Formats: sequence, structure tokens, C-alpha cells
Amino acid sequence: MRAVTLHRGQLEVEDVPDLRPTKGQVLLDVTRCGICGSDLHARVHGDATADVAAEIGYDHFMRSDQRVVMGHEFTGTVVDYGPGTRRRWSSGTPVVAMPILGTGDGIHLTGLSQPAAGGYAEQVLTTEALTFEVPNGLAPERAALTEPLAVALHAVNRGAVGTRDTAVVVGCGPIGLAVILVLKARGVRTVIASDYSPGRRELARRCGADVVVDPAAESPWSTFDDSRKYLTEASSLFELAVDSMTKLRAVPLLPWNRVLETAQKLGAGPRGPVVFECVGMPGVIEHIVSAAPLLTRVVVVGVCMEPDTFRPAMAINKEVELRFAFGYDPAEFHRALLLIAEGKVDPSPLVTDTVGLDGVADAFDRLADPERHAKILVDPSA
Amino acid sequence: MRAVTLHRGQLEVEDVPDLRPTKGQVLLDVTRCGICGSDLHARVHGDATADVAAEIGYDHFMRSDQRVVMGHEFTGTVVDYGPGTRRRWSSGTPVVAMPILGTGDGIHLTGLSQPAAGGYAEQVLTTEALTFEVPNGLAPERAALTEPLAVALHAVNRGAVGTRDTAVVVGCGPIGLAVILVLKARGVRTVIASDYSPGRRELARRCGADVVVDPAAESPWSTFDDSRKYLTEASSLFELAVDSMTKLRAVPLLPWNRVLETAQKLGAGPRGPVVFECVGMPGVIEHIVSAAPLLTRVVVVGVCMEPDTFRPAMAINKEVELRFAFGYDPAEFHRALLLIAEGKVDPSPLVTDTVGLDGVADAFDRLADPERHAKILVDPSA
Ligand SMILES: [Zn+2]
Ligand SMILES: [Zn+2]
Repeated sequence: MRAVTLHRGQLEVEDVPDLRPTKGQVLLDVTRCGICGSDLHARVHGDATADVAAEIGYDHFMRSDQRVVMGHEFTGTVVDYGPGTRRRWSSGTPVVAMPILGTGDGIHLTGLSQPAAGGYAEQVLTTEALTFEVPNGLAPERAALTEPLAVALHAVNRGAVGTRDTAVVVGCGPIGLAVILVLKARGVRTVIASDYSPGRRELARRCGADVVVDPAAESPWSTFDDSRKYLTEASSLFELAVDSMTKLRAVPLLPWNRVLETAQKLGAGPRGPVVFECVGMPGVIEHIVSAAPLLTRVVVVGVCMEPDTFRPAMAINKEVELRFAFGYDPAEFHRALLLIAEGKVDPSPLVTDTVGLDGVADAFDRLADPERHAKILVDPSA
Repeated sequence: MRAVTLHRGQLEVEDVPDLRPTKGQVLLDVTRCGICGSDLHARVHGDATADVAAEIGYDHFMRSDQRVVMGHEFTGTVVDYGPGTRRRWSSGTPVVAMPILGTGDGIHLTGLSQPAAGGYAEQVLTTEALTFEVPNGLAPERAALTEPLAVALHAVNRGAVGTRDTAVVVGCGPIGLAVILVLKARGVRTVIASDYSPGRRELARRCGADVVVDPAAESPWSTFDDSRKYLTEASSLFELAVDSMTKLRAVPLLPWNRVLETAQKLGAGPRGPVVFECVGMPGVIEHIVSAAPLLTRVVVVGVCMEPDTFRPAMAINKEVELRFAFGYDPAEFHRALLLIAEGKVDPSPLVTDTVGLDGVADAFDRLADPERHAKILVDPSA
């Protein structure tokens, strides 16, 4: 079959051996596969990522000296099954699958490891147990966005964002945009999006962001409504503490202990915003820690491969929280598919182009320009 | 009155002007005041801390060119009241107070700023609204530990530690020891403590740690019981995901969607340990992020004033969470006092010596040796 291979940073269309489903596997004809920021990243920083993965026990992340078929955001139609499968869908059924392949030789990351070839190809193998039927006649150009949406859904879950929280999305690449879509589908009232690129700010608007900010011109924190302003204006947490203490004293009928215990039970302390770091470059965490209000919770979704430096003293003074988010679980992946299929999320603003296998190398180059592109899909039949 | 002043790093006993309570203030005779690690820190790094505090709007943190009376962990007896107070306690009543002083000229940190002199003195001023009567005839050498215990209580609250969680305390200085006391008072089943110093490991044992580890000889993570071992042994989060997926398939009677939704509702995913970083030196966060198991939650209590470097990619791969903890609120301060007064926490192992005002400078030096000392109390009448 035809596939795009990566070897020492070079992408090429090649004829590679046909795939055969083994135990527990399903063979698909790929109908669409999204090009992910992490693919652009792995092309350049694959070895560094492989080192980190090896350190926690996964020693098969792709390396630059291997020949790898990338692509982990794919959808396709069922062609064939391997032994030990339940053969749950008839031939031609549209499905999406988590990019995790059980093989005789361990579990591997599809499209990010050599043993599990990815979706920049005419066909791909999936794990039947991690494969889901695409419902409602959903078009493949939408179903292909299940994976990035699952990443966003997991990040929002990690952030435990409530509908009355203020969410700030820093960086409006595909993942930032998907986070905006999920936040609005979840009913979060105020979503502030920030990106230096006018093109991406326009996409953020189309994805439903309530406030869109050019960080070169104004701070996202300056757009907070009055109910949050005290967090930026209070001089410090101890002033907040004294302030809440003063307010508590306005309840003169209760004995002192009871007042304190009631306040503790109500737990109605001040809440900071939830910030989604969707950039993944050194210095962004320190920038957020320095600029954000007191009690900010940061969900780190952008993968920064280099060591990064920040000031713990500032994070302590503001009681910042950093929650790192990785992938998603199967329930989140399935939920992401349903969000699209049930029309609760319209991911179409993310897709800025579709190319054939021959167009992948050029698409990787074009994706470097945030003005023109967010997500480019690959259609192997084109 | 007599007080210990700090000026350009030098501690000296001096005669300073007597204090007069102004609006909302109470004057106390100091009976005991603990010497805090942050005092040792402020003596050397005061200007750096002042810069960070100024950046978030508090521009009165002590600086090396000022003459400051430190001491924020004090207890004393009521002497007099300023105007506008409720004069709630009769003269001689023992009290503790949050080290936050409302003055005509703003709110200031007692013992850590020039406008609010601290407890290394015969007398100290408090804010009546932040002052609490010491109940149950509790001795001053115990009541004086309310403040560090409040710091620990707040850290444990920040960590949202459940009784079935495994807690790991890294660094068994006074704050680490206080965290151990609070964790055990809260009924946390497994508390693992780690410190290079045999003396501090012995104190950790006396504070109730279930497992005490010398990190030079063995890793705290190797002591996990079997139910947690999978977190250190699983190659990565995606393996965990597949693993839980495989377990879910053992429920064959439910349709696929229902299985997923049920699992989602149960939310019974794997839980990592809660780690308390009580060291506050550069590199400790990266060390924990690198060595700790998947899904570890780190509460950062130790204040590291220098910029610190870590690897976000490793934190992402493990879904680590960093929660920075600052001080405590009035309810936590009061709760800490009650924990001691009701006998739920016995803080006596922390106290390794008591000195008079003349002994403070020497005590600062002696506290540098973790083998010999944890908390030294000052008794101004001695
Ligand atoms: Zn992706
Ligand atoms: Zn202290």
C-alpha cells in the first residue's frame, strides 16, 4: 500500500508492505487522518521525546533513525479482522479508534512508534477493544477530529472547570481551539482566548470564545469582569484572608467558632480562573505564573520537551496550581466522538485544508504558518 | 522593651520603644515565640522575597537595610487594647494570633515587615479580629506551635488527601514534621517520610510516620504497598488506560457505551500518592517529578526563592499535579489551635530547645544543623 514515511526528518510517499491484522486487531481503509502538532514536533524532537518515554518504561517511541508511518488522528472503514476478535461491525462500517495497538510484542503508540504504523497511509491497524463505530452518518472529515477533541476534553476534565469559572485559553492552535469548543459545549460562561496570530484569534471566535485577546496589545487578565477583579487587585492572599475575615464579622449573632466553621463548611472562598496552557514552549509557564491572578489553576496541555524554568516563590505567593494533562482515557475518547456526532461540538472551524498523501510533506511545512492553517486533513484516496 | 532586631543579617538584643495598641489592636506579653525556617531564610534572602512580594503588590516585606523585629509564631497574654476593639478577653488571658497586623497605614506581616514588629520581644501587637483565646489551659510551649501547624493543615487541605491515599513527606524539618502530625490526625493510613538526616527521621517516627526512609539508601516509592505498585511499574498512562479497558471488558452483559459511561460515572480511576515538598531548594521539584509514580500530586510547601528548572514533558507523561501552598486562612489557623488543645495533635516532638532573647542569635546558628534541632522556642522572660 502507499504510505507517507518519516526517516531522519524527511517525509516521503512510498510503497510499503500491506498490513495483516493479528490477534485482537481490525484492518481499516483510512478515510481521513489529521496532521497533529505533535507530529510536527516528533519530526524534529522525536529523539528527546523517546528519551523521556524510555525513562518511564516505554522504549518504543519513534526515533529519527527509524522509518515510521505517522498519523494518529484517523478514521476509516472496516476491511478485515484478526483472530480472537468479536467481528463486531460489517465490512465498510465507519469507525474511529484510539491510536494504541496491541501487538504480539506489546502495546504500541499508533503513528508515533515503528511497530504500529499510523494513518498517513491507505490502511491502518486498530485494537478492536479501542475501536468505536461512527454514529449518525457522521462525515469522515468530522469523525477524524475525535482524537484532538478527546485531548481537549481530557484537559477540561483535568481542570475541573465549572460553568461559572472563567477559563483562559493561552494559544489557539488546534488543541487550544478544541479546548474552546469543549468549554463552550460544557456551558462554561466566560471563555477568554489569547493568541498573537490574528488568523487564530478569528478561529477562536468561530469556536465560540467570548473574549478574544491579542496578548501583544492587552493582557487577558485585564478583561476579567468585576466579580473577578479582586483577584487581580488584591495585594496578596493574606489581604484576601483578612478581607474575608472582616466580612465574616458582619455576622454578629453567631459565636466566633461557629462563624469560622460555617465559612469553612460553605467553602465559598475566592476562585481563580482556570488557564489552559496550549503553547508548549519554554517560558510560557513562568509567564502565566507571573501574570495570572491569585489562585489560578493552570492545565498544561502543550508539550514542552525542553527543561523549563519558573519561579516557585511566585507560584507559592499566588497559590497557583499546575495540572499536567496527558492524552485521554477510553471513556473520554468515546465521549468526544459523541459530542461531535450529536452536534454538541462543531469542529469544522479547525479544518483549514485537505490534502492527499502526496501533499503531506508540503502540509507539514504550511502548518508552520499559524496565520493560514490550524488542522490539515489527509485523504489517502485523493 | 527588650527585643531582638535584625539589621543587615545581624541579630542583636536591643531596647526598643514600647508598643502602643492603636485601632483594632491588642497588646500582648509574649510568653513563647517559635523560630521559623522562614526567619532563617528571610535573614539571608529577605530582599529576594521582598521583590517577589512587591511584584504582587505588597511592598513592605522586610529588607536587609531595615531594622526589623522578627518572630511570627508567638503566643502571649492580653495586656491592653486599642480603640475600636471589643475587649473580648480580660487581662492575662492566654491567646494566639495570626501574624497579620492592621495598622493605620495598611495591613502588614507581623515579624516579617518593619511596620509590624514580631514576637522576638517582650511584647507584640495583634489584630483583635485575628486573635484567638487559648482553650483548655494549654501550655504556651504548645500553643506557640499553632502557626506552623496551621501551615501544615493548609498544605494537607490543599492536597485534598483522603484517608486511603498514600502521603509522602519529602523533608522532615519543622513543616514536614507538622505535615506528618496533621496527616496522622486526619487518619491518613500510610504516611511515608523521607529525610537525609537520621535525627530528623527519628523525629518523623515520633510524629507518627508509618514508613521512614533515608533517600540516600532507598527510594520512598519502593516502599509502596502492592496496591500502589502498578503506578510505579506500569510503563505509562496509556498502558494503564488499556489495562482498565481490558478490565472493563470483563463486564460482558452491558453494551459498550453503557460500560464506558458506568466507568466514567464511578470515576474509580487509579490514584497516585500525594507528595509534600517540604524542602524548598532548587531541583527538588524536578527530582520528585522524575522519581515519583504516575498521577502523583505534589503540594509544594517549601519556599524556593531562586528560579527552578524542571521537565514539563516528564510531568505531562505522568500527569503530575503541582499545587503550591501559601500560609493558611483564619479558619485553618483556628482549627490548628483546636487540634493541639483537644489533644488530637501532640506537637511536642518538634520542640528541641527553649532560649531567652539573648539566645536567639545562637539558636539561629544552631538550627542550621538538622541533626540537633527542629524547632527552638524563645521565652522572652528567660
Ligand atoms: Zn494529536
Ligand atoms: Zn513560620
